[in-house]
Amino acid sequence: MEREFVEWLVRQVPADPRLEVPAGDDAAVLRPPASRRTVVTVDMLMEGVDFVLGPDCPPEAVGHKSLAVSLSDLAAMNARPEAVVVAVALPSRGGESLGRRIHAGLAALAARHDVAIAGGDTNAWDGPLVVSVTAIGSVPPGRAWRRDGARVGDRLLVTGACGGSLLGRHLAVVPRCREAAEIAGRFDVHAAIDVSDGLSLDVARLMAASGTAAVLDLAAIPIHPDAVTMSRQAGDSRSPLEHALGDGEDFELVLAMAPEVAAAAVAASGTGALDVPLTIIGDVIEGCGLFVRDPDGALAPLAPRGFLHALEG
Amino acid sequence: MEREFVEWLVRQVPADPRLEVPAGDDAAVLRPPASRRTVVTVDMLMEGVDFVLGPDCPPEAVGHKSLAVSLSDLAAMNARPEAVVVAVALPSRGGESLGRRIHAGLAALAARHDVAIAGGDTNAWDGPLVVSVTAIGSVPPGRAWRRDGARVGDRLLVTGACGGSLLGRHLAVVPRCREAAEIAGRFDVHAAIDVSDGLSLDVARLMAASGTAAVLDLAAIPIHPDAVTMSRQAGDSRSPLEHALGDGEDFELVLAMAPEVAAAAVAASGTGALDVPLTIIGDVIEGCGLFVRDPDGALAPLAPRGFLHALEG
Repeated sequence: MEREFVEWLVRQVPADPRLEVPAGDDAAVLRPPASRRTVVTVDMLMEGVDFVLGPDCPPEAVGHKSLAVSLSDLAAMNARPEAVVVAVALPSRGGESLGRRIHAGLAALAARHDVAIAGGDTNAWDGPLVVSVTAIGSVPPGRAWRRDGARVGDRLLVTGACGGSLLGRHLAVVPRCREAAEIAGRFDVHAAIDVSDGLSLDVARLMAASGTAAVLDLAAIPIHPDAVTMSRQAGDSRSPLEHALGDGEDFELVLAMAPEVAAAAVAASGTGALDVPLTIIGDVIEGCGLFVRDPDGALAPLAPRGFLHALEG
Repeated sequence: MEREFVEWLVRQVPADPRLEVPAGDDAAVLRPPASRRTVVTVDMLMEGVDFVLGPDCPPEAVGHKSLAVSLSDLAAMNARPEAVVVAVALPSRGGESLGRRIHAGLAALAARHDVAIAGGDTNAWDGPLVVSVTAIGSVPPGRAWRRDGARVGDRLLVTGACGGSLLGRHLAVVPRCREAAEIAGRFDVHAAIDVSDGLSLDVARLMAASGTAAVLDLAAIPIHPDAVTMSRQAGDSRSPLEHALGDGEDFELVLAMAPEVAAAAVAASGTGALDVPLTIIGDVIEGCGLFVRDPDGALAPLAPRGFLHALEG
């Protein structure tokens, strides 16, 4: 019964001082932090597209992932997570048990990032599972990391390593919220994006928004061990580097910074001063698109690779 | 192609001074109005459950309805609509044309209510159409109309008339945003809810949240002409009143007010002073549940009727 399930859900949500009116009313009322902007992002995850329920993907992992991808968007804006609302379409049969387990996964991650669960919309149907998470964060005025702020001469950096997320990391997403706050506290970032659809594709998006081009240093791209494992699997014809450039769902951050700031950030990274690994992967240049350098130093175009939702006609 | 469609969507969105960073980035950045709370609500509409695409329900109507139901939730909180983010799962085949038409319906209503379209998430799959709208509004601190504020002795009022929304009003929803603002500007409202699942069911929810019961005056329930039409249809065994009490998707507001305030509001309603029709439909009493009065004046329980999403096991 939906009503009892929703009442159960509402009881699960801990009281939060940010909520003037908590979940259970027509809408939630939030006390926005003083002198900060409100940052909003939504992501919809669909069964069969973004996850396949099964032994490797229990409902808790769906709950985790659906919140994690939205938190990653907040991190990519330098926004502090504040609250979340969750809409679900559950299958009529077995939907309540599924809903409880999705909630458990989502609530655990929300607690870890101090995000208030402010409300939601619970539905049942005979279709596949759909989860839509809207995350609300905050950032001081003018301090959001936009996509359009990269400048010619900037260096491009990436947190962590990329590729092979399908081996499991695409579910166990670790949104880089704390790392973003840590970086923003010490270094000036001109532009940022999170790697959702593929490192090269998302760098291309960052460059397109900024009206600039990028030269990537392929030898410098941090390749995740999962990318190596995947490239060794039977039938896989792609190199670890190709996996790192095109797999997507890494949810690492790509940042554009002035050269001296980038150097200082890399020097600090991996030390106690800045926990997150940071690697310089390229440079922002005039023009449009992605490039690599030939052995003789000439620029050659690089086709962005990554995941695109197909819409026909 | 999703990318081009998303770029098209982003270009459709007019610039809005409330947006520091508009649609097209990892997240939108909103300038929240000073000294107001942030109000958030989400609603997910699913093909085959909330609408059936066809001659009577073009994609534009789906766009309209998906925003209207969220605006109705904001109205029920006395919140002024500010911004909206929209997540869609479109069918791979024909999804782009569908998406454009959904956007058209949604954008027209957004313009009418001065709501900024702040962003979204566009997906394609082989499943049915799903639209999830998160609406963000604002309200002065302590001024939200909660469900739990009804007091014993209050009168219950409803805007407009109920029943028979399936004849078309469930699609052409008129969210009572302006009416809510008009009422809040002149009268003290103790509690409110919008009629989404059925007048009697939603009044029962309002009473449950407030820890009170209601006596409904069945002779006073404003019955929509559509309820009369539906009850005359072949095979329909319900009276117009039963339709008004249980049909749902009327998206009228139920309000609890002190008796003298309720009388003043009804006196003002329908005049130039207060445009919206307001009708007193009952009283808040001690106890739990819904009641009607027998001809001899004794209280008899009334079973709430309305739409509940079925979740099995």
